[in-house]
Amino acid sequence: MSMNSYGHLFRVTTWGESHGPALGATVDGCPPGVPIEASAIQHWLDRRKPGQNKYTTQRREPDEVEILSGVFEGQSTGTPIQLMIRNTDQRSKDYGDIVEKFRPGHADITYWQRYGIRDYRGGGRSSARETAARVAAGGVARAALAEMAPDLKITGYMVQMGDRRVSGIDLAEVENNPFWAPDATAAEDWADYLDALRKSGDSVGAVIEVRASGVPAGLGAPIYGKLDTDLAAGMMSINAVKGVEIGDGMAAAALTGTANADEITMGPDGPQYSSNHAGGILGGISTGQDVVVRFAVKPTSSILTPRKTITKSGEATEIVTKGRHDPCVGIRAVPVGEAMMACILLDHMLLHRGQVGVNRGEIG
Amino acid sequence: MSMNSYGHLFRVTTWGESHGPALGATVDGCPPGVPIEASAIQHWLDRRKPGQNKYTTQRREPDEVEILSGVFEGQSTGTPIQLMIRNTDQRSKDYGDIVEKFRPGHADITYWQRYGIRDYRGGGRSSARETAARVAAGGVARAALAEMAPDLKITGYMVQMGDRRVSGIDLAEVENNPFWAPDATAAEDWADYLDALRKSGDSVGAVIEVRASGVPAGLGAPIYGKLDTDLAAGMMSINAVKGVEIGDGMAAAALTGTANADEITMGPDGPQYSSNHAGGILGGISTGQDVVVRFAVKPTSSILTPRKTITKSGEATEIVTKGRHDPCVGIRAVPVGEAMMACILLDHMLLHRGQVGVNRGEIG
Amino acid sequence: MSMNSYGHLFRVTTWGESHGPALGATVDGCPPGVPIEASAIQHWLDRRKPGQNKYTTQRREPDEVEILSGVFEGQSTGTPIQLMIRNTDQRSKDYGDIVEKFRPGHADITYWQRYGIRDYRGGGRSSARETAARVAAGGVARAALAEMAPDLKITGYMVQMGDRRVSGIDLAEVENNPFWAPDATAAEDWADYLDALRKSGDSVGAVIEVRASGVPAGLGAPIYGKLDTDLAAGMMSINAVKGVEIGDGMAAAALTGTANADEITMGPDGPQYSSNHAGGILGGISTGQDVVVRFAVKPTSSILTPRKTITKSGEATEIVTKGRHDPCVGIRAVPVGEAMMACILLDHMLLHRGQVGVNRGEIG
Amino acid sequence: MSMNSYGHLFRVTTWGESHGPALGATVDGCPPGVPIEASAIQHWLDRRKPGQNKYTTQRREPDEVEILSGVFEGQSTGTPIQLMIRNTDQRSKDYGDIVEKFRPGHADITYWQRYGIRDYRGGGRSSARETAARVAAGGVARAALAEMAPDLKITGYMVQMGDRRVSGIDLAEVENNPFWAPDATAAEDWADYLDALRKSGDSVGAVIEVRASGVPAGLGAPIYGKLDTDLAAGMMSINAVKGVEIGDGMAAAALTGTANADEITMGPDGPQYSSNHAGGILGGISTGQDVVVRFAVKPTSSILTPRKTITKSGEATEIVTKGRHDPCVGIRAVPVGEAMMACILLDHMLLHRGQVGVNRGEIG
Repeated sequence: MSMNSYGHLFRVTTWGESHGPALGATVDGCPPGVPIEASAIQHWLDRRKPGQNKYTTQRREPDEVEILSGVFEGQSTGTPIQLMIRNTDQRSKDYGDIVEKFRPGHADITYWQRYGIRDYRGGGRSSARETAARVAAGGVARAALAEMAPDLKITGYMVQMGDRRVSGIDLAEVENNPFWAPDATAAEDWADYLDALRKSGDSVGAVIEVRASGVPAGLGAPIYGKLDTDLAAGMMSINAVKGVEIGDGMAAAALTGTANADEITMGPDGPQYSSNHAGGILGGISTGQDVVVRFAVKPTSSILTPRKTITKSGEATEIVTKGRHDPCVGIRAVPVGEAMMACILLDHMLLHRGQVGVNRGEIG
Repeated sequence: MSMNSYGHLFRVTTWGESHGPALGATVDGCPPGVPIEASAIQHWLDRRKPGQNKYTTQRREPDEVEILSGVFEGQSTGTPIQLMIRNTDQRSKDYGDIVEKFRPGHADITYWQRYGIRDYRGGGRSSARETAARVAAGGVARAALAEMAPDLKITGYMVQMGDRRVSGIDLAEVENNPFWAPDATAAEDWADYLDALRKSGDSVGAVIEVRASGVPAGLGAPIYGKLDTDLAAGMMSINAVKGVEIGDGMAAAALTGTANADEITMGPDGPQYSSNHAGGILGGISTGQDVVVRFAVKPTSSILTPRKTITKSGEATEIVTKGRHDPCVGIRAVPVGEAMMACILLDHMLLHRGQVGVNRGEIG
Repeated sequence: MSMNSYGHLFRVTTWGESHGPALGATVDGCPPGVPIEASAIQHWLDRRKPGQNKYTTQRREPDEVEILSGVFEGQSTGTPIQLMIRNTDQRSKDYGDIVEKFRPGHADITYWQRYGIRDYRGGGRSSARETAARVAAGGVARAALAEMAPDLKITGYMVQMGDRRVSGIDLAEVENNPFWAPDATAAEDWADYLDALRKSGDSVGAVIEVRASGVPAGLGAPIYGKLDTDLAAGMMSINAVKGVEIGDGMAAAALTGTANADEITMGPDGPQYSSNHAGGILGGISTGQDVVVRFAVKPTSSILTPRKTITKSGEATEIVTKGRHDPCVGIRAVPVGEAMMACILLDHMLLHRGQVGVNRGEIG
Repeated sequence: MSMNSYGHLFRVTTWGESHGPALGATVDGCPPGVPIEASAIQHWLDRRKPGQNKYTTQRREPDEVEILSGVFEGQSTGTPIQLMIRNTDQRSKDYGDIVEKFRPGHADITYWQRYGIRDYRGGGRSSARETAARVAAGGVARAALAEMAPDLKITGYMVQMGDRRVSGIDLAEVENNPFWAPDATAAEDWADYLDALRKSGDSVGAVIEVRASGVPAGLGAPIYGKLDTDLAAGMMSINAVKGVEIGDGMAAAALTGTANADEITMGPDGPQYSSNHAGGILGGISTGQDVVVRFAVKPTSSILTPRKTITKSGEATEIVTKGRHDPCVGIRAVPVGEAMMACILLDHMLLHRGQVGVNRGEIG
């Protein structure tokens, strides 16, 4: 019952702090015989890597992954895969001011209250650097999914920055701009908006959507093993996330039953649906439609605007956070959300095979 | 690794179907010596009970809980507590039509595809009746919390029905209307609105908010044991829930870092905050402010309006769901959300005591 | 993380006390579509039932199992199966003396020290009556195994009573005597021996062996998911068990490497072995040979011979335990050991299917 | 549900192969504020280290531990502690012969059958090198126990080599000989015996006893969270272990109830016992007496005597295992058994604090 693990059969435990020697993920339960190359995992890490443009933190980390175990002659052996990423660009002196002061909106104060000790350098364990380990684990999951469900495809993108939403979703645009925006016009607008925010030392939140197509029907389980339960937990466990939605999400509350019911017809390859309010999940089990999840990332709490706070000894003070921070940490959350989707879908494919073998109920 | 369990040290496993002989919860890990009476648990069950007014399903279930184990001479012994509720008012003949047809928006089709067998009577395992077991378990959790954290108070209420939101939150109003609305005007409006919907055979969604005050600072853990991770999973596991928010939730995306930072000052009893955008949780650990969770419940999928669907043999057809259903199942989700909050907070209090003992970091 | 559960994918949680209203097992993770009848489960319970002859406790319990959930039209649905057994023959007045005194060799004192409350009636949760729930769960596991591995056969028998061992193992004899002895001569000897012990108010220990044939090769996993690790935990969790052995067990210590190596040859259906020192498990994974487990059951601690003890207030006293007790509780442990073997093997078949699908490495 | 993890709240996941770049342990759930130094962990690793005398494998591994996370300024932070040990002395060419052949008595064949791929170099994941990671984790557990239970002391020793048992137990002798023998005469005898075996290319088994004194009463839980259940699983999970005993173990079967009952008297500091047949555990919960566990280690299967086996293609052949192996791998299992005891006792101390807080039942 590790508090730093997720997944049932495909089980990922992450470890490491922002400014310690290294961080990583212990990945247990990968099926054997899956082709796994460090370079393939690196591909996904590079998408999350900081310092790639002016819209993300200027910390320069190569984020190079080493595979320390569980892979032999290029294939998974079925034993734990240890993925390690060395930290190289720690400028710990930048963080001198937060040794004694708590940043408002940050885990500084709660870690201190709970543990009585905290690695304040770069946020320690609460740093978004932890998500690099998830992305690496997601690379392993993607390799296994490529074997087990070759048609499955996962795409993440940003649908809102601050209060500015995309006006449509064109997946072909996602790779064309630094924000993973599925809307070229929004991307241009966001570039100006974020540039101004960055210069003013402020930050802003975002909404990310992750979509998986080609998900087989039948994944999930009742009640607490629901596919949406695990997706909600997985996305909420990402740093700075404050809300998670499946399909219509919070907007489902405003619908009538008539409007919400995705009508079913029979297609050439099985059931088809007139719409996807459900986000591809009914009763916790996948329908075969796209699985659609959204999550909101709050703005980075490390900002240049002075904010009132207190010191460890309880004295009133102000804090301005220098150092190198993301003006919109939601940007780099896109590959993280994709990685969580990959890990959770693989886990449920293994669970399904374990309990059920293959789908039991034929239709038509 | 039960798919029908939640919690770490305070571990609840629910079982049972809508029209089987009984349903219940196996509650393991309760501290010993907690006063537990069936009547106290019944108090919470009665709040969720169907058939209490015209706004909920007319199925008449007394929902009487029997304590079969784990309690001796009125106190918990520290061993598993079995809570059983007999089903008494099953009118299985009402469900004849859904034996062969799948209700759009319902788990009928996915259960069939996955398992090849489903107890179609009243939705079987996917019925909202399962939540009675959670409410019973929540009664045990409340009794333990009363011992360990006597100032802790949990209140749930409905903040939106369909697209109609409350205009303010007055907790004193919550018990005065059948919707647990914290706004007397909204309650009147909703009564008319829902009455019309009910008569037209339709249904509607809702948003529920659950607030816990008096939560000690320091509950939670990094990454996958975050308090908000467990709350997200817990609420998403409730039937028909499609979205979960902590604090500002999805709206946090629209904020700047300056606006989002809850400023900290020193109060007579410890840190105080200028606002509560965070919903009482920073870095996955409670701050001591109110813990605030919201979740969206989609409209009941069993409606009288005909909807297109298919049969098990793949033929096109239409379905109208007779039987007794909630026009707004969100109403009865209020006590369920409270119960989940109680179970999760108790679990984290036990986890905290296990790993840390008492809070380590003093302030001031 | 229930302390009253075992199994990974096939997960059993037992609940209930000796003299409470009922006890039972919550069984989660059973594959769907398995034929499950109460009468088939009853068959296994009847073998463990008390009061069947003069060698077991004279408490008369019908041990009738009720299936409360998870089975529909005679088949498992894949959702939790609740198995309940009512307690009917509680003579609680028999236990008056142990309210204040602790029986030496019994859990009385440790439960009191830990919890500060204990259901002293019949040993409460620490009673061997708990094992009825395991036997019921084992009945479900056997039904699933009959589908998944029809050649798999599990047989338990007693190989030692007190210091008297069987001189050989003839499985055809096991059902012919009240001790499940695989040796007719030993059974006669034990009858006289136990009769004398019973009359003198004493009790005695035993060694049980459980053998599973037809176990597919490849079940298990490295390190902490080893098949032998789970068998050791499963058997040690049975009341009064103090030792567990796989294959040669403790005697393996006396062997040289040359003597211990089960030589391998190629047979018509795959690898064959010259001997089975390993008990059918190498590196935690099954070889396809018989899986052989033994466990020692200590003598019942409730005896008529006076023993020194103390009261709850710390005063020196003596205790004699009246009531109805097993002179050799090991006899009724035979069906319990079989049930644990069934549950653990099924669990590992599901785990294997989950991670690996089918065996990957062909030989020959 | 990692198959490579153990522990509930103090959760250890080991990873790594014999001839991969590194191996290690991810330790989650350590209380915060525990003084942890690499040098203190190294102390325990040095005791298990190979190549220290002619009685253990001649592989030279410094087994230097690096702490990669979870420790800040010399103290645990409450977040995962990653312990890494680089492999340095891999002579992989030694293992050429086992690429195609299966060693009798070894995991070679079962890993192949299950996974279809195995890292044959040095036994890969099934190598006893994995136990270094456990010893490192045990070092963390010992540091935490030193804070929480300063009187608790754990001592492991060998009580039998081959068929030669010690004639008594003198803990003062344990550190005076290379076998951790608590009997100087036995140690001399074993030296000659093992020397002869080693020269003949054979190996032999052993029995290890681990004793913990100063264990508080009240640790453990009913049924599947029993302290002895976890000890049985923990010891059986060590490579080559085939049997586990608590207290009198298998010999308890030969006792009468009268002989087995450890009588209770009241001492100055609480209950005292006339004997310790129970091994310090009643009903799965510690009594305050010494917790005593024994386990049998089978002889190393890598021997110089030719044994019949088959190749991957199913052809009959013989195998002689060259390379560097332990003639009695039980010797190095002593520190491993101690480490498992430390981890399990700490875990149960945290679990106890979580559920119960402090012991509830006073005596006297």
